[in-house]
Amino acid sequence: MGRAKVIALLTDFGLADPYVGAMKAVIAGINPKVQIIDISHHVPPQDIQEGAFILYSSYKYFPKGTIFVAVVDPGVGTRRRIVCVRTGGYTFLAPDNGLLGLVITKGEVGARCNVPLLAVEVTNARYFLPEVSSTFHGRDVFAPVAAHLSRGLNPARLGRRIDDPHTFSFPDPLVVKKGVMAGEIIHIDRFGNLITNVEHVWAEVLDWGPVSISVKDKEISRISRTYQEGQVGELLALFGSSGYLELSINMGNAREVLGCVRGDKVIVRYKDRAYNND
Amino acid sequence: MGRAKVIALLTDFGLADPYVGAMKAVIAGINPKVQIIDISHHVPPQDIQEGAFILYSSYKYFPKGTIFVAVVDPGVGTRRRIVCVRTGGYTFLAPDNGLLGLVITKGEVGARCNVPLLAVEVTNARYFLPEVSSTFHGRDVFAPVAAHLSRGLNPARLGRRIDDPHTFSFPDPLVVKKGVMAGEIIHIDRFGNLITNVEHVWAEVLDWGPVSISVKDKEISRISRTYQEGQVGELLALFGSSGYLELSINMGNAREVLGCVRGDKVIVRYKDRAYNND
Amino acid sequence: MGRAKVIALLTDFGLADPYVGAMKAVIAGINPKVQIIDISHHVPPQDIQEGAFILYSSYKYFPKGTIFVAVVDPGVGTRRRIVCVRTGGYTFLAPDNGLLGLVITKGEVGARCNVPLLAVEVTNARYFLPEVSSTFHGRDVFAPVAAHLSRGLNPARLGRRIDDPHTFSFPDPLVVKKGVMAGEIIHIDRFGNLITNVEHVWAEVLDWGPVSISVKDKEISRISRTYQEGQVGELLALFGSSGYLELSINMGNAREVLGCVRGDKVIVRYKDRAYNND
Repeated sequence: MGRAKVIALLTDFGLADPYVGAMKAVIAGINPKVQIIDISHHVPPQDIQEGAFILYSSYKYFPKGTIFVAVVDPGVGTRRRIVCVRTGGYTFLAPDNGLLGLVITKGEVGARCNVPLLAVEVTNARYFLPEVSSTFHGRDVFAPVAAHLSRGLNPARLGRRIDDPHTFSFPDPLVVKKGVMAGEIIHIDRFGNLITNVEHVWAEVLDWGPVSISVKDKEISRISRTYQEGQVGELLALFGSSGYLELSINMGNAREVLGCVRGDKVIVRYKDRAYNND
Repeated sequence: MGRAKVIALLTDFGLADPYVGAMKAVIAGINPKVQIIDISHHVPPQDIQEGAFILYSSYKYFPKGTIFVAVVDPGVGTRRRIVCVRTGGYTFLAPDNGLLGLVITKGEVGARCNVPLLAVEVTNARYFLPEVSSTFHGRDVFAPVAAHLSRGLNPARLGRRIDDPHTFSFPDPLVVKKGVMAGEIIHIDRFGNLITNVEHVWAEVLDWGPVSISVKDKEISRISRTYQEGQVGELLALFGSSGYLELSINMGNAREVLGCVRGDKVIVRYKDRAYNND
Repeated sequence: MGRAKVIALLTDFGLADPYVGAMKAVIAGINPKVQIIDISHHVPPQDIQEGAFILYSSYKYFPKGTIFVAVVDPGVGTRRRIVCVRTGGYTFLAPDNGLLGLVITKGEVGARCNVPLLAVEVTNARYFLPEVSSTFHGRDVFAPVAAHLSRGLNPARLGRRIDDPHTFSFPDPLVVKKGVMAGEIIHIDRFGNLITNVEHVWAEVLDWGPVSISVKDKEISRISRTYQEGQVGELLALFGSSGYLELSINMGNAREVLGCVRGDKVIVRYKDRAYNND
């Protein structure tokens, strides 16, 4: 695909330690022209599910050709594989622990788009730093490999093709019975918005009529469009910017008010107009 | 003004979620050459006053031509306007909720410099992303518009001119009586320094003689020049790098020691030599 | 050395205030082409030792020619000196308070490599901003000087040569008696890993045989290679990516579990094969 203009970074390294800076330093030494964009470095330590969601909900806004480096890697230095996955559009580099799972299974990489998926196990030490520590592959392996890819290196040079990259995905919501769907909170953002695994596509496919949503002991009786509907302090449900149903409080913090954590159940009751034979 | 070299970002998005990364991704897709500089993404959620202060206290250090994108936007998706304000020097893009208030009323944009101010309501969807969510205009509207502006787009193309952008400003200090000024804390920085709304210009205009400053039950009897005068642990008053009177503790944290919060009163007693008819 | 491609920043400014953004703004105004890479801005306020460690453990991954700007500067505006230190490879700009101590005494700048060290006291105001505050030299002095250096300015133009830059270093571990070394924790990272001052070179020089390491009331009986050896929850010791002995918990947080703070003692007992005359 020729040279890439952007390398995007996602890690659980935080910004206090010099780990992210060291990765950027290595990239700049190999390809001074590539632009480095941070997605986030505040994935909770070793939280692969959170990393996978953050990557999946943002990658498609990057310019085609972008190389994504995702490092949430509790198994660094063990036999876990490192994978490079390429589609017509993007290249992803990550430990093969599920971090690319959502991108592979739900993104354009995967089934939805029928784009051929090239997956390679990264083993060719020629593109690593000369000395590879067993505890910081972000700096010693991922950064130099990404920089070489951004200069046009063919991923096939990185190692052998594989056809079984890890395809973790968070659970889909469950249709418990006709007109009742059980979802869960999969992400909570800085504003305290509670993002669920109920994608907008469900509302379309099932052609939701009037809806009511329950979380904890609260009930919401309509889908809003913005964070500022109803009264100040009112609990709202809306489809957010990632396409997922989320719960929010007008000028407030839903996480704090409801005391929710990731994994909490959210029940959606809807009039099922698509399959409505009643 | 031709092409801009820098886009500066100020938001309340934090850095854990992928929101800032998505904005940068959109910008990089439209103008890969522009340099993106973060002012801050840690404005407390929906705190327009804090955002306005941070923007105002930093914008003038940026190179002329810089495009500022400020997004603290509790009303995203509602009928609140988006404004683009341009002066000879800079371009600002923000929700019209007061976030540009200090820049407009106190900055070079405004009255102080008599520079004509061009303000436009941003409505031309041609420069937005093809799909605009109702919850994330930072990514779908602000980022692409800023990127187009950085490529030389004339802001007049964004929408109709307006002459009433929101001009919120924090309160000026009050001269309670001759020689006594009542100010307040408008910002507290990472070091615990308490920045007040008493600008240095007041000390000049009133030609302050000997001064005493009180906050909580403490008294400070002189203006220092650096953070390391007097004893370790001593409470100091000085005019800080933004030109405002601030309270600081030598090698310590004034916020913690005094227990101050934004809005707390600070009283300045001074010998008024400018209008001294005694 | 001609033009530099990278300026690396290390401060204790945090990212909430606009201080770092203002430094970048000044640099961009003087040299729009230089790439700015953040090492960290989360050094605890005024913690020179922590800043020195973070700089030392990351600088060598940057491309040759990089200019490092390190600002942890409790004495800003006082008579403390500002120094510029140059080697064949890198240029460092910092207050002369020990922040460059490890780089000078342990890095390639210093004794280990016999590279001539050029140290200059930075006093030439021609390369500062026109107005220099007494409280924010990061913006008014360090940033513009670094930007001018990145455009090829000879550091000799900054002021007079000095031969006594401050050379703080943290304590070396102590060989208490044959086969027993007393070290201490000098840094704790985001993952709770406890990094000690026991460098890998000691294990080589003394040719460690079987080893046991004690911290608090815990005992570790071997050196691991990765963070994921033994059982989940097991306390491990390994030489980390900076070359220092560190203590870690498999899938856990050693700082939290052990309740350790910087300065806590770590005792290493080893079979001393190098000097083994028993």
